[in-house]
Amino acid sequence: MAKQQSGIDIDLGNRCSQIAYGWAKKTFDFRPQSSGSPVKGLDGAFSNVMDFHGVKIGMSSDGIGTKIELAERTGIYDTLGFDLIAMVADDLAANGLETVNLSNILDVDFLDDRVVDRLMKGLYEAAKFARITVTGGEIAELGNRIGGWGKGMHFNWGATGVGVLPPGNEVIDGSKVKAGDAVVSLKSRGFRSNGFSLLRKIMRENFGENWHLEPYEENCTWGEKLLLPSLIYSPLITDLLKEKLSIHGIAHITGGGIGDNLARVLKVSGFGAHLDNVFDPLDVMLKVQELGSVDDEQAYRLWNMGNGMLLIVDKAQVQSVLEFVKGRGYQAQKAGEIIPQAKIELQSRGMKRKTLVYEVE
Amino acid sequence: MAKQQSGIDIDLGNRCSQIAYGWAKKTFDFRPQSSGSPVKGLDGAFSNVMDFHGVKIGMSSDGIGTKIELAERTGIYDTLGFDLIAMVADDLAANGLETVNLSNILDVDFLDDRVVDRLMKGLYEAAKFARITVTGGEIAELGNRIGGWGKGMHFNWGATGVGVLPPGNEVIDGSKVKAGDAVVSLKSRGFRSNGFSLLRKIMRENFGENWHLEPYEENCTWGEKLLLPSLIYSPLITDLLKEKLSIHGIAHITGGGIGDNLARVLKVSGFGAHLDNVFDPLDVMLKVQELGSVDDEQAYRLWNMGNGMLLIVDKAQVQSVLEFVKGRGYQAQKAGEIIPQAKIELQSRGMKRKTLVYEVE
Repeated sequence: MAKQQSGIDIDLGNRCSQIAYGWAKKTFDFRPQSSGSPVKGLDGAFSNVMDFHGVKIGMSSDGIGTKIELAERTGIYDTLGFDLIAMVADDLAANGLETVNLSNILDVDFLDDRVVDRLMKGLYEAAKFARITVTGGEIAELGNRIGGWGKGMHFNWGATGVGVLPPGNEVIDGSKVKAGDAVVSLKSRGFRSNGFSLLRKIMRENFGENWHLEPYEENCTWGEKLLLPSLIYSPLITDLLKEKLSIHGIAHITGGGIGDNLARVLKVSGFGAHLDNVFDPLDVMLKVQELGSVDDEQAYRLWNMGNGMLLIVDKAQVQSVLEFVKGRGYQAQKAGEIIPQAKIELQSRGMKRKTLVYEVE
Repeated sequence: MAKQQSGIDIDLGNRCSQIAYGWAKKTFDFRPQSSGSPVKGLDGAFSNVMDFHGVKIGMSSDGIGTKIELAERTGIYDTLGFDLIAMVADDLAANGLETVNLSNILDVDFLDDRVVDRLMKGLYEAAKFARITVTGGEIAELGNRIGGWGKGMHFNWGATGVGVLPPGNEVIDGSKVKAGDAVVSLKSRGFRSNGFSLLRKIMRENFGENWHLEPYEENCTWGEKLLLPSLIYSPLITDLLKEKLSIHGIAHITGGGIGDNLARVLKVSGFGAHLDNVFDPLDVMLKVQELGSVDDEQAYRLWNMGNGMLLIVDKAQVQSVLEFVKGRGYQAQKAGEIIPQAKIELQSRGMKRKTLVYEVE
């Protein structure tokens, strides 16, 4: 299964990530007993959390991939900031960290000040939503090292967030997960910033080069529909943790889908999950699946399929969690429960409903 | 002077930076009285330093621009890590912050695991030199959004560093600079990661498309010479600050050269500088100047011209600083002094020695 339908070689990607992590890990002892040393987890593994004179801080970097092409195609540039902050802050939130600062790097081929203005306005609005300060930024003009769609300014956009562990809290690393815990799903509102290589391929094959102009529904093109910005969960998680509810694990559903991202959380405890009531995919996801004849296995690996974040909570607190989340305007439902076996059984709700099984290892 | 010889529009670049900063600044009050709020300086302006429950932390993002093309041309990939850490950590060092953690984002068109391995090995070695832990990383496959030279894997590489203010120290923001202070220059060992657009243009015009293969000296091509990695000053500055010497201001000489970077430090105090004894440019810089008929004004704006960092120190401590720096294996000399007038007078040492004057404003 080396090559996916999208043309991305998953095995090579994993190998490169392992190479990078291997070299990075050798740096972890460059700061013994001094500020900024990585914190060890219960199992002796390092987390991405560092200790600064007792204050625990994490940092996380990510970009928004080829979703940017949708902005180039539609000329709508002021929503990508939500995708960028979602990718970064929701990864930190999954460890129980409150993202407080963000620094971004915008690589462009050449500058268009009107586009830069729209991008940064969107980042501002997303930062307001997420209660984050944008305290750093860099714009680099890289000429032909940057490409993209059409004639306008092309760019790639990444960011690093810094999150702090609220004093008195512990890092959420999945170590407290136990059989019988409930899994609560938080609904997504569209595609996030992953799986766009296959999305674009399916669109092109079905509608030709200018697929983004194709109507999706009244007053909305396919381009606009696929561009819809990510919902940011980070401020919700921050507030939820203040309620002192027992959140044992959090999975942010990005590339790799529910399978990979939930397995990463579960492998600390060695438990598994039975998920028979996840949210249905959004209509647009089902339509894309149909257009591309994408099976549920792949759809659930590449896309969030309606579930942007999964919370593992003490079963006695499910109702409290659901009510709190709904009170904040997000949609949530109990999606399943933690089981003793080290596997994830997911009742898919894509084109062909079936049971997808992932090993927790 | 909108268009430079390199084809980069400096005014447009500054306008875009102002736009980005304008939006970012509006986010600074999203965290009133809570952790992660930006620290105000003496003049009421915000610094890039945030307060986390009393611990002061800064973050800085940067990339290595088009110097990457030199790695693609020479096939030498394990030195760029030094450039990346230099760009990030030396910016933090200029505020008196000790860089402790780094997170990097590598954008590629397609993956070559051998190249990724060499890049990450170089990052590891640079991190070891700089005593930094690499605690985050992201590799993104972006297909035709990334371009470069030749047939191999193309990439862009950026990073964000987190630095901590050593307890008991103050942020170095130039506010303590006073007339009569000495300016000490730290010698560079080559081009850093800026001004490469013009460098490449000059090379191409003189030696054709395969200019990197042209011999520079025995056993060294022009490609290898221009690729030489940046010297990282950050660990030196950290140790220097432990000596409790009075460092009043630090300028990291990157894009904009001595003029822009020193002026930024001086504008807090309103003083200026008279620099009549900076280091001579390295031979390679003089040769490039000659090949491209680059005047001293532009050379000193685009390149470090032999001076990678300037320290403003109490004049009574110049000898102690020089001795300490030399004891650590770096080269330093007194380059001039702080003057009451708000201007920088620089005796250039390029092809045409002359006095360059920059306003401090």
